[in-house]
Amino acid sequence: MSKVTFYHAGCPVCVGAEQALLGLIDPRHPVEVVHLGEKPDQVAQAAAAGVKSVPALVVDGEVLHVNFGASLADLQ
Amino acid sequence: MSKVTFYHAGCPVCVGAEQALLGLIDPRHPVEVVHLGEKPDQVAQAAAAGVKSVPALVVDGEVLHVNFGASLADLQ
Repeated sequence: MSKVTFYHAGCPVCVGAEQALLGLIDPRHPVEVVHLGEKPDQVAQAAAAGVKSVPALVVDGEVLHVNFGASLADLQ
Repeated sequence: MSKVTFYHAGCPVCVGAEQALLGLIDPRHPVEVVHLGEKPDQVAQAAAAGVKSVPALVVDGEVLHVNFGASLADLQ
């Protein structure tokens, strides 16, 4: 089981990526979905994980930036 | 069941993304993996699908560019 976090900010690109991607993931890998616009206190945590833009999927510490919706800097 | 294609070019970024991502995907969604370096005849098809760089995951026609390994233009 992998630790998976999907960071997004509610942007159209984020929503598209979420719909395309999260439905594919095996339910054995529960995905934590974090809306950084609603939880700005988690922006620093995302940045520390290596997230530079959203949407991003972090899989066992590996950051996958998926398309480009917004820079993390713009959410801080 | 979604139609999923993972385009890559064997680059380190591609390999990292493949390892992080494909292991998550529910086996009910079979993933076609296309190495564009080895199958240059499929570059035009990837471009037509909207792929601009690799690695990229195409899910039911929606293109998810995952990080940045190489521009598709450099593979043509």
